[in-house]
Amino acid sequence: MSDLPIIGVTMGDPAGIGPELCLALLSDAAIARICRVRVYGSLALLERVAREMGLPPPDRACVVDDEDLQVCDVVPGKVQVACGEAAARCIERAVRDTLNRKVAAMVTAPLHKEALHAAGVKYPGHTEMLAALSGCDEVCMMMSSDLVRVCLVTTHVALRDVAQQVTCARVERVLGLAYEAMQQQGVSCPRITVCGLNPHAGEGGAFGKEEQDEIVPAIARACSRGLLVRGPLPADTAFIPAIRDATDVYVVMYHDQGLIPFKMLAFETGVNVTLGLPFIRTSPDHGTAFDVAWQGRASSRSMCEAVKLALALARVDTGDGFE
Amino acid sequence: MSDLPIIGVTMGDPAGIGPELCLALLSDAAIARICRVRVYGSLALLERVAREMGLPPPDRACVVDDEDLQVCDVVPGKVQVACGEAAARCIERAVRDTLNRKVAAMVTAPLHKEALHAAGVKYPGHTEMLAALSGCDEVCMMMSSDLVRVCLVTTHVALRDVAQQVTCARVERVLGLAYEAMQQQGVSCPRITVCGLNPHAGEGGAFGKEEQDEIVPAIARACSRGLLVRGPLPADTAFIPAIRDATDVYVVMYHDQGLIPFKMLAFETGVNVTLGLPFIRTSPDHGTAFDVAWQGRASSRSMCEAVKLALALARVDTGDGFE
Repeated sequence: MSDLPIIGVTMGDPAGIGPELCLALLSDAAIARICRVRVYGSLALLERVAREMGLPPPDRACVVDDEDLQVCDVVPGKVQVACGEAAARCIERAVRDTLNRKVAAMVTAPLHKEALHAAGVKYPGHTEMLAALSGCDEVCMMMSSDLVRVCLVTTHVALRDVAQQVTCARVERVLGLAYEAMQQQGVSCPRITVCGLNPHAGEGGAFGKEEQDEIVPAIARACSRGLLVRGPLPADTAFIPAIRDATDVYVVMYHDQGLIPFKMLAFETGVNVTLGLPFIRTSPDHGTAFDVAWQGRASSRSMCEAVKLALALARVDTGDGFE
Repeated sequence: MSDLPIIGVTMGDPAGIGPELCLALLSDAAIARICRVRVYGSLALLERVAREMGLPPPDRACVVDDEDLQVCDVVPGKVQVACGEAAARCIERAVRDTLNRKVAAMVTAPLHKEALHAAGVKYPGHTEMLAALSGCDEVCMMMSSDLVRVCLVTTHVALRDVAQQVTCARVERVLGLAYEAMQQQGVSCPRITVCGLNPHAGEGGAFGKEEQDEIVPAIARACSRGLLVRGPLPADTAFIPAIRDATDVYVVMYHDQGLIPFKMLAFETGVNVTLGLPFIRTSPDHGTAFDVAWQGRASSRSMCEAVKLALALARVDTGDGFE
């Protein structure tokens, strides 16, 4: 038996590109050299997708089968209640195994939120669902690539509601999570750059006071604990090369403040990491791509990067997940 | 007498890099071939800066002198009430001459807002001051470069207050201004891309309803008038190359949504254009740079680009400003 660590991979929405990405992982020689992939999904669905796409069938021993999905009914590229239900079941099962250290880390193929909601699962995304399933109330989404890494103070929140969620306590918590995540990635003393919330970082209070009232105190507390933090910087110039070169990780206040520059720099190669969970979880930087599902057009690059990063983080985490 | 058009250039804050940028313009051979620069500033101050920096003195005939500034008291790199007052006087004079078509267009060197506020001038920036001085209530800031152009629905507004200012009427107005500006730049049928306000452009209302309630109706109205508009797109992927290539101008909902990608693509070469004024006004994409004022370290590249763009816009505007 191989002593490589096991990475649990959830299939995501069966009608999206998740199943073919799982098949790609299972037959990827480079991935096989560094870990064993265990897919949480419907075996019959994976076999059907492989058959229809002319791919090798999955190794049954590598699939934790969700037997409840009626595979013949699944239509690729369509929102289906049964698909939302199956995707949720696979996540629940994978979370259980990850919490029990049966796998070293968890990688999630994309969900379709409408299908999930149609199935009665009321989370805005994986991040919130995983937090609830593992009993965590303070997680943080990090987008990671070789070029840039961003940690989000708020995530799937209407812009109207962002400012009130930018609190000193939350910013300080995210600074701590960003620091730990970079240490897990081997950066012993990470340089953290914090963006302001408002234009020109508030310009001394002229365009908003959250910098003065919430962000600056959070940075001061983090610095007093020994973290290397600068900011809050005006977000519009925070991502120019000179500042990127002096930054290991950014802490940004809202989704698009971080994701606009991230996707400009690392489109389709980024990896989403949930920080603050009791286990390692990563996912690719794209959605279900219903428009190209089961057509062999989806790139598995981000998914492979997600597996590699999960593995790297797991190695320095616990050393568990070996059978 | 040359029949080249005259471009009015305000000196900006005397203690910043504005004076040396004006001197650079006055001695720039490439600029002299396309227009005549008329500086609204303190002649004695320009002469002092030229002397201290070892530059040729300004041609007196090219300066509309502000005689009220006590030049010997000015300290470079310092917030000074007298400097804020002088900067404001120069803008007022230049606006008057531009409205009276004595100059073809107006280019403004950077202000220091603290100095301006210390002088009792309570505008958040040039844009708002110019709007007030020319009696316009609906202007729009556009950032322009060869690579990307963005028009802002809201500008110097705390993020907390952005959502309520994203109204259908305002979005429609900015779409119209963006369309006209691109036509002035010679694009007969500009392709306009609109960003959503919320993450994932609201994801069908899950993270905010401004897309459905305000932005989509504004786009529909613009399209019904024959404009080529698409969106609202999720802002995080709106600036990837494939979409940039199919976009002549973006309409974005708030400052950093447009300025983050703009400055990543066109740092220090961008030009700020105020749309909706009764005259052409541009400015460079940087501030007063108090830390390097009067040291010969400031680049005049963005300032030169601002003059060139003002000239290009003025040519197709009225043909006025020739003496």
